[in-house]
Amino acid sequence: MKRTYVVTGSASGIGLATRKRLEALGHKVIGIDILDAEVIADLSNPEGRKSAVERVIALSEGQIDSVIANAGSGKSESKTVSINFFGATELITGLHEALSKSGAPRVVATSSMASLMKVDKELVDLMLAGDEAKSVARAEALVKQGNGAEGMIYSSTKRALSRWLRRECIKDDWAKLGIPMNAVGPGIVKTPMVAEMIATKEGRDGLAKVVPMPLHGYLEPEKVADLIIWLASEANSHVTGQTIYIDGGSDAVLRGDDVWDLSSD
Amino acid sequence: MKRTYVVTGSASGIGLATRKRLEALGHKVIGIDILDAEVIADLSNPEGRKSAVERVIALSEGQIDSVIANAGSGKSESKTVSINFFGATELITGLHEALSKSGAPRVVATSSMASLMKVDKELVDLMLAGDEAKSVARAEALVKQGNGAEGMIYSSTKRALSRWLRRECIKDDWAKLGIPMNAVGPGIVKTPMVAEMIATKEGRDGLAKVVPMPLHGYLEPEKVADLIIWLASEANSHVTGQTIYIDGGSDAVLRGDDVWDLSSD
Repeated sequence: MKRTYVVTGSASGIGLATRKRLEALGHKVIGIDILDAEVIADLSNPEGRKSAVERVIALSEGQIDSVIANAGSGKSESKTVSINFFGATELITGLHEALSKSGAPRVVATSSMASLMKVDKELVDLMLAGDEAKSVARAEALVKQGNGAEGMIYSSTKRALSRWLRRECIKDDWAKLGIPMNAVGPGIVKTPMVAEMIATKEGRDGLAKVVPMPLHGYLEPEKVADLIIWLASEANSHVTGQTIYIDGGSDAVLRGDDVWDLSSD
Repeated sequence: MKRTYVVTGSASGIGLATRKRLEALGHKVIGIDILDAEVIADLSNPEGRKSAVERVIALSEGQIDSVIANAGSGKSESKTVSINFFGATELITGLHEALSKSGAPRVVATSSMASLMKVDKELVDLMLAGDEAKSVARAEALVKQGNGAEGMIYSSTKRALSRWLRRECIKDDWAKLGIPMNAVGPGIVKTPMVAEMIATKEGRDGLAKVVPMPLHGYLEPEKVADLIIWLASEANSHVTGQTIYIDGGSDAVLRGDDVWDLSSD
Protein backbone atom coordinates (compact mmCIF):
# COMPACT_ATOMS: atom_id res chain seq x y z
CA MET A 1 0.00 0.00 0.00
CA LYS A 2 1.28 3.46 -0.87
CA ARG A 3 2.25 5.44 2.21
CA THR A 4 3.42 8.99 2.86
CA TYR A 5 6.79 9.31 4.58
CA VAL A 6 8.34 12.47 5.99
CA VAL A 7 12.14 12.22 5.97
CA THR A 8 14.36 14.90 7.48
CA GLY A 9 17.91 15.30 6.24
CA SER A 10 16.65 13.87 2.95
CA ALA A 11 19.28 15.52 0.75
CA SER A 12 22.28 13.42 1.78
CA GLY A 13 23.56 10.35 3.62
CA ILE A 14 21.10 8.05 5.35
CA GLY A 15 18.18 10.37 4.62
CA LEU A 16 18.86 10.35 0.90
CA ALA A 17 19.30 6.58 0.82
CA THR A 18 16.03 6.21 2.71
CA ARG A 19 14.13 8.51 0.36
CA LYS A 20 15.45 6.67 -2.70
CA ARG A 21 14.44 3.26 -1.37
CA LEU A 22 11.02 4.45 -0.33
CA GLU A 23 10.42 6.00 -3.74
CA ALA A 24 11.62 2.82 -5.44
CA LEU A 25 9.01 0.98 -3.37
CA GLY A 26 6.35 3.34 -4.72
CA HIS A 27 5.80 5.48 -1.63
CA LYS A 28 5.40 9.24 -1.43
CA VAL A 29 8.26 11.05 0.30
CA ILE A 30 8.14 14.56 1.68
CA GLY A 31 11.77 15.44 2.25
CA ILE A 32 12.91 18.15 4.62
CA ASP A 33 16.38 19.64 4.33
CA ILE A 34 18.19 22.93 3.95
CA LEU A 35 18.40 22.31 0.19
CA ASP A 36 17.20 19.83 -2.47
CA ALA A 37 13.98 18.86 -0.70
CA GLU A 38 10.22 19.34 -0.98
CA VAL A 39 10.38 21.32 2.23
CA ILE A 40 13.31 23.66 2.64
CA ALA A 41 13.64 24.35 6.34
CA ASP A 42 16.25 24.90 9.01
CA LEU A 43 15.44 22.58 11.90
CA SER A 44 18.02 24.26 14.13
CA ASN A 45 15.48 26.85 15.33
CA PRO A 46 11.84 26.83 16.48
CA GLU A 47 10.64 28.96 13.54
CA GLY A 48 12.21 26.58 11.03
CA ARG A 49 10.56 23.60 12.71
CA LYS A 50 7.19 25.35 12.81
CA SER A 51 7.43 26.24 9.14
CA ALA A 52 8.49 22.67 8.27
CA VAL A 53 5.47 21.24 10.09
CA GLU A 54 3.12 23.67 8.32
CA ARG A 55 4.57 22.88 4.90
CA VAL A 56 4.36 19.12 5.51
CA ILE A 57 0.75 19.41 6.57
CA ALA A 58 -0.04 21.44 3.45
CA LEU A 59 1.76 19.02 1.12
CA SER A 60 0.23 15.91 2.73
CA GLU A 61 -3.28 17.32 3.14
CA GLY A 62 -2.92 16.71 6.85
CA GLN A 63 -2.24 12.98 6.82
CA ILE A 64 1.12 11.23 6.96
CA ASP A 65 2.03 7.62 7.70
CA SER A 66 5.60 7.82 8.99
CA VAL A 67 8.00 10.41 10.32
CA ILE A 68 11.67 9.56 9.89
CA ALA A 69 13.58 12.14 11.95
CA ASN A 70 17.01 11.61 10.54
CA ALA A 71 18.61 15.05 10.19
CA GLY A 72 21.66 15.51 12.37
CA SER A 73 24.95 17.26 12.78
CA GLY A 74 28.16 15.74 14.09
CA LYS A 75 29.79 19.02 14.98
CA SER A 76 30.93 19.75 18.51
CA GLU A 77 28.97 22.96 18.80
CA SER A 78 25.83 24.15 20.53
CA LYS A 79 23.79 24.20 17.30
CA THR A 80 24.06 20.39 17.28
CA VAL A 81 21.78 20.31 20.32
CA SER A 82 19.16 22.30 18.43
CA ILE A 83 19.33 20.17 15.30
CA ASN A 84 19.80 16.68 16.72
CA PHE A 85 17.46 16.80 19.69
CA PHE A 86 14.97 19.65 19.36
CA GLY A 87 14.91 19.44 15.58
CA ALA A 88 13.80 15.81 15.89
CA THR A 89 11.51 15.89 18.90
CA GLU A 90 9.65 19.09 18.00
CA LEU A 91 9.10 17.92 14.46
CA ILE A 92 7.77 14.56 15.62
CA THR A 93 5.49 16.21 18.16
CA GLY A 94 4.36 18.80 15.62
CA LEU A 95 3.31 16.06 13.24
CA HIS A 96 1.44 14.04 15.85
CA GLU A 97 -2.00 15.02 14.61
CA ALA A 98 -1.15 14.29 10.96
CA LEU A 99 0.25 10.90 12.03
CA SER A 100 -2.88 10.09 14.01
CA LYS A 101 -4.87 10.16 10.75
CA SER A 102 -2.91 7.19 9.39
CA GLY A 103 -4.10 3.62 9.66
CA ALA A 104 -0.57 2.52 10.57
CA PRO A 105 1.44 5.49 11.87
CA ARG A 106 5.12 5.05 12.70
CA VAL A 107 7.99 7.17 14.07
CA VAL A 108 11.69 6.41 13.56
CA ALA A 109 14.68 8.55 14.48
CA THR A 110 18.34 8.28 13.63
CA SER A 111 20.26 8.06 16.87
CA SER A 112 23.85 6.78 16.86
CA MET A 113 26.17 4.28 18.50
CA ALA A 114 27.60 7.46 20.05
CA SER A 115 24.60 7.26 22.39
CA LEU A 116 26.67 4.58 24.16
CA MET A 117 29.59 6.95 24.73
CA LYS A 118 30.32 9.31 27.56
CA VAL A 119 27.67 11.99 27.87
CA ASP A 120 27.23 15.18 29.86
CA LYS A 121 24.47 14.29 32.28
CA GLU A 122 23.48 17.91 32.83
CA LEU A 123 23.06 18.48 29.11
CA VAL A 124 21.05 15.29 28.68
CA ASP A 125 18.73 16.25 31.54
CA LEU A 126 18.20 19.76 30.15
CA MET A 127 17.25 18.38 26.75
CA LEU A 128 14.87 15.86 28.29
CA ALA A 129 13.33 18.72 30.29
CA GLY A 130 12.60 20.38 26.93
CA ASP A 131 14.60 23.52 27.72
CA GLU A 132 16.33 24.49 24.50
CA ALA A 133 17.83 27.76 25.74
CA LYS A 134 19.45 26.17 28.77
CA SER A 135 20.57 23.16 26.72
CA VAL A 136 22.28 25.42 24.21
CA ALA A 137 23.90 27.39 27.02
CA ARG A 138 25.21 24.19 28.60
CA ALA A 139 26.62 23.06 25.24
CA GLU A 140 28.33 26.43 24.88
CA ALA A 141 29.86 25.97 28.31
CA LEU A 142 31.22 22.56 27.24
CA VAL A 143 32.77 24.10 24.14
CA LYS A 144 34.34 26.80 26.29
CA GLN A 145 35.60 24.18 28.75
CA GLY A 146 37.29 22.32 25.89
CA ASN A 147 39.77 19.48 26.55
CA GLY A 148 37.32 17.02 24.98
CA ALA A 149 34.26 18.20 26.91
CA GLU A 150 32.83 19.51 23.64
CA GLY A 151 32.97 15.96 22.25
CA MET A 152 30.16 15.02 24.64
CA ILE A 153 27.70 17.30 22.86
CA TYR A 154 27.03 14.86 20.03
CA SER A 155 26.79 11.76 22.23
CA SER A 156 24.52 13.64 24.65
CA THR A 157 22.10 14.66 21.88
CA LYS A 158 21.83 11.08 20.65
CA ARG A 159 21.45 9.63 24.15
CA ALA A 160 18.74 12.17 24.92
CA LEU A 161 16.94 11.43 21.66
CA SER A 162 16.95 7.67 22.34
CA ARG A 163 15.72 8.26 25.88
CA TRP A 164 13.01 10.68 24.74
CA LEU A 165 11.61 8.06 22.36
CA ARG A 166 11.55 5.42 25.11
CA ARG A 167 9.81 7.83 27.45
CA GLU A 168 7.24 9.08 24.95
CA CYS A 169 6.38 5.82 23.24
CA ILE A 170 4.45 4.34 26.15
CA LYS A 171 2.34 7.45 26.76
CA ASP A 172 -1.30 7.40 25.68
CA ASP A 173 -0.64 10.01 22.98
CA TRP A 174 1.46 7.49 21.11
CA ALA A 175 0.81 3.97 22.39
CA LYS A 176 -2.99 4.28 22.53
CA LEU A 177 -2.97 5.71 19.00
CA GLY A 178 -0.93 2.70 17.87
CA ILE A 179 2.27 4.60 17.04
CA PRO A 180 5.55 2.69 17.53
CA MET A 181 8.55 5.00 18.14
CA ASN A 182 12.05 3.68 17.63
CA ALA A 183 15.58 4.68 16.78
CA VAL A 184 18.44 3.18 14.85
CA GLY A 185 21.94 3.54 16.27
CA PRO A 186 24.40 3.37 13.37
CA GLY A 187 28.13 2.84 13.69
CA ILE A 188 30.36 4.59 11.16
CA VAL A 189 28.38 5.23 7.99
CA LYS A 190 29.99 6.38 4.77
CA THR A 191 28.27 9.75 4.65
CA PRO A 192 29.48 13.31 4.10
CA MET A 193 29.42 13.70 7.91
CA VAL A 194 32.40 11.35 8.38
CA ALA A 195 34.03 11.41 4.92
CA GLU A 196 36.99 13.45 6.13
CA MET A 197 37.52 11.30 9.21
CA ILE A 198 37.75 8.05 7.26
CA ALA A 199 39.82 9.46 4.40
CA THR A 200 43.17 8.81 6.11
CA LYS A 201 44.74 5.78 7.79
CA GLU A 202 45.29 7.78 10.99
CA GLY A 203 41.63 8.74 10.95
CA ARG A 204 40.52 5.15 10.47
CA ASP A 205 42.90 3.78 13.13
CA GLY A 206 41.75 6.37 15.63
CA LEU A 207 38.12 5.65 14.86
CA ALA A 208 38.59 1.88 15.23
CA LYS A 209 39.42 2.40 18.90
CA VAL A 210 36.24 4.30 19.69
CA VAL A 211 33.95 2.53 17.20
CA PRO A 212 35.20 -1.04 16.73
CA MET A 213 33.21 -2.73 13.93
CA PRO A 214 34.40 -6.34 13.64
CA LEU A 215 31.38 -7.33 11.53
CA HIS A 216 31.52 -6.02 7.96
CA GLY A 217 33.22 -2.68 8.84
CA TYR A 218 31.84 0.70 7.83
CA LEU A 219 28.24 0.92 6.71
CA GLU A 220 26.76 2.03 3.43
CA PRO A 221 23.83 4.39 4.14
CA GLU A 222 21.51 1.99 2.28
CA LYS A 223 22.04 -0.59 5.04
CA VAL A 224 20.73 1.79 7.66
CA ALA A 225 17.90 2.84 5.35
CA ASP A 226 16.74 -0.78 5.16
CA LEU A 227 16.33 -1.03 8.93
CA ILE A 228 14.69 2.39 9.16
CA ILE A 229 12.22 1.37 6.48
CA TRP A 230 11.32 -1.85 8.27
CA LEU A 231 10.70 0.04 11.51
CA ALA A 232 8.68 2.71 9.68
CA SER A 233 6.57 0.21 7.75
CA GLU A 234 3.22 -1.36 8.53
CA ALA A 235 5.06 -4.61 9.32
CA ASN A 236 6.28 -3.15 12.59
CA SER A 237 3.39 -2.86 15.00
CA HIS A 238 4.93 -3.95 18.32
CA VAL A 239 8.58 -2.91 18.43
CA THR A 240 8.69 0.37 20.36
CA GLY A 241 11.10 2.37 22.48
CA GLN A 242 14.05 0.47 21.05
CA THR A 243 17.34 1.88 19.86
CA ILE A 244 18.61 -0.80 17.52
CA TYR A 245 22.35 -0.61 17.09
CA ILE A 246 23.38 -1.22 13.51
CA ASP A 247 27.05 -0.91 14.14
CA GLY A 248 29.01 -3.97 13.07
CA GLY A 249 29.31 -5.05 16.70
CA SER A 250 30.59 -1.90 18.41
CA ASP A 251 27.82 -2.03 21.01
CA ALA A 252 28.71 -5.63 21.92
CA VAL A 253 32.45 -4.89 21.98
CA LEU A 254 32.17 -1.73 24.06
CA ARG A 255 29.47 -2.74 26.54
CA GLY A 256 30.17 -6.45 26.76
CA ASP A 257 27.50 -9.10 26.97
CA ASP A 258 25.79 -8.17 30.23
CA VAL A 259 23.70 -5.08 29.58
CA TRP A 260 20.75 -6.18 31.68
CA ASP A 261 22.18 -5.26 35.08
CA LEU A 262 19.55 -2.61 35.66
CA SER A 263 16.77 -5.12 35.94
CA SER A 264 15.77 -6.67 39.21
CA ASP A 265 18.45 -9.33 39.53
CA MET B 1 17.57 -14.98 -4.13
CA LYS B 2 16.46 -18.32 -2.79
CA ARG B 3 18.01 -19.11 0.58
CA THR B 4 18.01 -22.12 2.90
CA TYR B 5 16.67 -21.46 6.41
CA VAL B 6 16.85 -23.81 9.37
CA VAL B 7 13.98 -23.14 11.79
CA THR B 8 13.67 -24.91 15.12
CA GLY B 9 10.27 -25.23 16.74
CA SER B 10 8.85 -25.06 13.23
CA ALA B 11 5.66 -27.00 13.96
CA SER B 12 3.86 -24.32 15.99
CA GLY B 13 3.73 -20.71 17.13
CA ILE B 14 6.43 -18.29 15.98
CA GLY B 15 8.41 -21.05 14.28
CA LEU B 16 5.43 -22.14 12.18
CA ALA B 17 4.59 -18.53 11.24
CA THR B 18 8.23 -18.01 10.26
CA ARG B 19 8.36 -21.13 8.12
CA LYS B 20 5.14 -20.21 6.32
CA ARG B 21 6.33 -16.69 5.49
CA LEU B 22 9.73 -17.91 4.32
CA GLU B 23 8.10 -20.49 2.08
CA ALA B 24 5.70 -17.89 0.70
CA LEU B 25 8.78 -15.82 -0.18
CA GLY B 26 10.14 -18.80 -2.11
CA HIS B 27 12.85 -19.92 0.31
CA LYS B 28 13.73 -23.45 1.37
CA VAL B 29 12.97 -24.27 4.99
CA ILE B 30 14.41 -27.16 6.94
CA GLY B 31 12.20 -27.36 10.00
CA ILE B 32 13.25 -29.04 13.22
CA ASP B 33 10.67 -30.10 15.77
CA ILE B 34 9.48 -33.08 17.73
CA LEU B 35 6.77 -33.64 15.10
CA ASP B 36 5.59 -32.30 11.73
CA ALA B 37 9.03 -31.24 10.52
CA GLU B 38 11.68 -32.23 7.99
CA VAL B 39 13.95 -33.10 10.91
CA ILE B 40 12.31 -34.80 13.85
CA ALA B 41 14.61 -34.25 16.81
CA ASP B 42 14.49 -33.63 20.53
CA LEU B 43 16.72 -30.65 21.26
CA SER B 44 16.49 -31.22 25.00
CA ASN B 45 19.46 -33.58 24.96
CA PRO B 46 22.92 -33.66 23.34
CA GLU B 47 22.13 -36.74 21.20
CA GLY B 48 19.01 -35.08 19.76
CA ARG B 49 20.99 -31.93 18.91
CA LYS B 50 23.77 -33.96 17.30
CA SER B 51 21.30 -35.93 15.22
CA ALA B 52 19.49 -32.71 14.21
CA VAL B 53 22.76 -31.16 13.02
CA GLU B 54 23.62 -34.28 11.01
CA ARG B 55 20.20 -34.43 9.38
CA VAL B 56 20.28 -30.71 8.49
CA ILE B 57 23.72 -31.11 6.90
CA ALA B 58 22.48 -34.08 4.89
CA LEU B 59 19.31 -32.30 3.73
CA SER B 60 21.14 -29.07 2.85
CA GLU B 61 24.17 -30.68 1.26
CA GLY B 62 26.30 -28.93 3.84
CA GLN B 63 25.31 -25.34 3.12
CA ILE B 64 22.70 -23.23 4.88
CA ASP B 65 22.07 -19.49 4.88
CA SER B 66 20.31 -18.84 8.18
CA VAL B 67 19.71 -20.58 11.47
CA ILE B 68 16.61 -19.48 13.34
CA ALA B 69 16.85 -21.01 16.81
CA ASN B 70 13.31 -20.54 17.94
CA ALA B 71 12.31 -23.69 19.83
CA GLY B 72 11.56 -23.08 23.47
CA SER B 73 9.60 -24.20 26.48
CA GLY B 74 7.90 -21.97 29.02
CA LYS B 75 7.68 -24.59 31.73
CA SER B 76 9.26 -24.02 35.14
CA GLU B 77 11.29 -27.21 35.04
CA SER B 78 14.91 -28.16 34.49
CA LYS B 79 14.28 -29.48 30.98
CA THR B 80 13.61 -25.86 29.94
CA VAL B 81 17.31 -25.12 30.49
CA SER B 82 18.24 -27.88 28.09
CA ILE B 83 15.78 -26.86 25.40
CA ASN B 84 15.95 -23.05 25.57
CA PHE B 85 19.66 -22.52 26.11
CA PHE B 86 21.64 -25.61 25.13
CA GLY B 87 19.16 -26.62 22.43
CA ALA B 88 19.73 -23.23 20.78
CA THR B 89 23.43 -22.64 21.37
CA GLU B 90 24.62 -26.17 20.51
CA LEU B 91 22.54 -26.24 17.36
CA ILE B 92 23.87 -22.87 16.23
CA THR B 93 27.45 -23.90 16.97
CA GLY B 94 26.95 -27.28 15.30
CA LEU B 95 25.81 -25.56 12.12
CA HIS B 96 28.68 -23.06 12.05
CA GLU B 97 30.52 -24.80 9.25
CA ALA B 98 27.41 -25.14 7.07
CA LEU B 99 26.66 -21.45 7.67
CA SER B 100 30.18 -20.44 6.72
CA LYS B 101 29.51 -21.78 3.19
CA SER B 102 26.79 -19.17 2.63
CA GLY B 103 27.43 -15.85 0.92
CA ALA B 104 25.27 -14.11 3.52
CA PRO B 105 25.00 -16.25 6.66
CA ARG B 106 22.76 -15.14 9.53
CA VAL B 107 21.79 -16.36 13.02
CA VAL B 108 18.64 -15.35 14.88
CA ALA B 109 17.27 -16.71 18.14
CA THR B 110 13.96 -16.28 19.90
CA SER B 111 14.66 -14.83 23.31
CA SER B 112 11.83 -13.17 25.28
CA MET B 113 10.92 -10.03 27.15
CA ALA B 114 11.24 -12.38 30.13
CA SER B 115 14.99 -11.84 29.71
CA LEU B 116 14.30 -8.50 31.47
CA MET B 117 12.79 -10.20 34.49
CA LYS B 118 14.40 -11.45 37.65
CA VAL B 119 16.91 -14.21 36.94
CA ASP B 120 18.92 -16.64 39.00
CA LYS B 121 22.47 -15.38 38.57
CA GLU B 122 24.01 -18.74 39.42
CA LEU B 123 21.93 -20.50 36.79
CA VAL B 124 22.75 -17.87 34.15
CA ASP B 125 26.47 -18.16 34.89
CA LEU B 126 26.38 -21.97 34.68
CA MET B 127 24.67 -21.84 31.29
CA LEU B 128 27.14 -19.28 29.99
CA ALA B 129 29.96 -21.54 31.23
CA GLY B 130 28.48 -24.24 28.98
CA ASP B 131 27.90 -26.70 31.81
CA GLU B 132 24.60 -28.41 31.06
CA ALA B 133 24.70 -30.93 33.92
CA LYS B 134 25.33 -28.29 36.56
CA SER B 135 22.77 -25.93 34.96
CA VAL B 136 20.12 -28.65 35.07
CA ALA B 137 21.02 -29.43 38.68
CA ARG B 138 20.69 -25.76 39.62
CA ALA B 139 17.29 -25.56 37.90
CA GLU B 140 16.20 -28.65 39.83
CA ALA B 141 17.28 -26.97 43.06
CA LEU B 142 15.15 -23.92 42.15
CA VAL B 143 12.13 -26.16 41.55
CA LYS B 144 12.70 -27.85 44.90
CA GLN B 145 13.08 -24.45 46.60
CA GLY B 146 9.71 -23.37 45.19
CA ASN B 147 7.98 -20.18 46.40
CA GLY B 148 8.46 -18.65 42.95
CA ALA B 149 12.15 -19.54 42.60
CA GLU B 150 11.19 -21.96 39.81
CA GLY B 151 9.75 -19.02 37.87
CA MET B 152 13.29 -17.74 37.34
CA ILE B 153 14.22 -20.75 35.21
CA TYR B 154 12.55 -19.42 32.06
CA SER B 155 13.82 -15.84 32.43
CA SER B 156 17.32 -17.14 33.17
CA THR B 157 17.41 -19.27 30.02
CA LYS B 158 16.37 -16.29 27.86
CA ARG B 159 18.78 -13.88 29.55
CA ALA B 160 21.62 -16.37 29.08
CA LEU B 161 20.69 -16.92 25.44
CA SER B 162 20.67 -13.17 24.73
CA ARG B 163 24.01 -12.75 26.53
CA TRP B 164 25.56 -15.72 24.72
CA LEU B 165 24.70 -14.18 21.35
CA ARG B 166 26.23 -10.83 22.37
CA ARG B 167 29.36 -12.58 23.57
CA GLU B 168 29.78 -14.85 20.56
CA CYS B 169 28.88 -12.41 17.79
CA ILE B 170 32.06 -10.36 18.04
CA LYS B 171 34.40 -13.36 18.04
CA ASP B 172 36.38 -14.08 14.88
CA ASP B 173 34.42 -17.31 14.30
CA TRP B 174 31.33 -15.25 13.62
CA ALA B 175 32.23 -11.61 12.96
CA LYS B 176 35.16 -12.35 10.66
CA LEU B 177 33.01 -14.77 8.71
CA GLY B 178 30.39 -12.06 8.34
CA ILE B 179 27.70 -13.70 10.47
CA PRO B 180 25.34 -11.36 12.38
CA MET B 181 23.81 -12.97 15.49
CA ASN B 182 20.71 -11.45 17.05
CA ALA B 183 17.66 -12.24 19.10
CA VAL B 184 14.08 -11.09 19.19
CA GLY B 185 12.46 -10.55 22.60
CA PRO B 186 8.71 -10.98 22.18
CA GLY B 187 6.10 -9.94 24.71
CA ILE B 188 2.99 -12.10 24.98
CA VAL B 189 2.43 -13.94 21.72
CA LYS B 190 -0.76 -15.82 20.93
CA THR B 191 0.87 -19.23 20.78
CA PRO B 192 0.03 -22.61 22.31
CA MET B 193 2.64 -21.79 25.00
CA VAL B 194 0.45 -19.08 26.55
CA ALA B 195 -3.03 -20.04 25.28
CA GLU B 196 -4.19 -21.22 28.70
CA MET B 197 -2.82 -18.17 30.48
CA ILE B 198 -4.68 -15.69 28.28
CA ALA B 199 -7.92 -17.67 28.12
CA THR B 200 -9.37 -16.12 31.30
CA LYS B 201 -9.79 -12.56 32.55
CA GLU B 202 -7.84 -13.39 35.72
CA GLY B 203 -5.02 -14.73 33.57
CA ARG B 204 -4.97 -11.64 31.40
CA ASP B 205 -5.14 -9.24 34.36
CA GLY B 206 -2.31 -11.01 36.12
CA LEU B 207 -0.24 -11.01 32.97
CA ALA B 208 -0.80 -7.27 32.36
CA LYS B 209 1.07 -6.55 35.58
CA VAL B 210 4.21 -8.44 34.60
CA VAL B 211 4.04 -7.84 30.84
CA PRO B 212 2.37 -4.47 30.22
CA MET B 213 1.79 -3.99 26.48
CA PRO B 214 0.30 -0.52 25.92
CA LEU B 215 1.02 -0.62 22.17
CA HIS B 216 -1.29 -2.96 20.25
CA GLY B 217 -1.56 -5.61 23.00
CA TYR B 218 -0.80 -9.29 22.47
CA LEU B 219 1.17 -10.29 19.41
CA GLU B 220 0.23 -12.54 16.53
CA PRO B 221 3.14 -14.92 15.81
CA GLU B 222 3.35 -13.51 12.26
CA LYS B 223 4.46 -10.15 13.68
CA VAL B 224 7.47 -11.73 15.37
CA ALA B 225 8.17 -13.78 12.26
CA ASP B 226 8.47 -10.56 10.21
CA LEU B 227 11.22 -9.21 12.45
CA ILE B 228 13.01 -12.57 12.59
CA ILE B 229 12.95 -12.74 8.81
CA TRP B 230 14.40 -9.25 8.43
CA LEU B 231 17.23 -10.11 10.84
CA ALA B 232 17.85 -13.44 9.07
CA SER B 233 17.83 -11.94 5.58
CA GLU B 234 20.64 -10.63 3.41
CA ALA B 235 19.40 -7.09 4.16
CA ASN B 236 20.83 -7.30 7.66
CA SER B 237 24.61 -7.20 7.49
CA HIS B 238 25.52 -4.92 10.43
CA VAL B 239 23.00 -5.43 13.24
CA THR B 240 24.60 -7.91 15.64
CA GLY B 241 24.46 -8.83 19.32
CA GLN B 242 21.09 -7.13 19.70
CA THR B 243 18.04 -8.42 21.50
CA ILE B 244 15.23 -6.47 19.90
CA TYR B 245 12.19 -6.34 22.14
CA ILE B 246 8.99 -6.75 20.17
CA ASP B 247 6.74 -6.40 23.12
CA GLY B 248 4.20 -3.61 22.72
CA GLY B 249 6.25 -1.43 25.06
CA SER B 250 6.79 -3.70 28.07
CA ASP B 251 10.56 -3.09 27.97
CA ALA B 252 10.06 0.68 28.06
CA VAL B 253 7.41 0.46 30.80
CA LEU B 254 9.38 -1.90 33.02
CA ARG B 255 12.90 -0.50 32.63
CA GLY B 256 12.08 3.15 32.08
CA ASP B 257 13.87 5.38 29.63
CA ASP B 258 17.40 5.29 31.02
CA VAL B 259 18.89 1.93 30.16
CA TRP B 260 22.35 3.25 29.30
CA ASP B 261 23.64 3.60 32.86
CA LEU B 262 26.29 0.95 32.32
CA SER B 263 28.23 3.07 29.89
CA SER B 264 30.95 5.42 30.97
CA ASP B 265 28.86 8.38 32.11
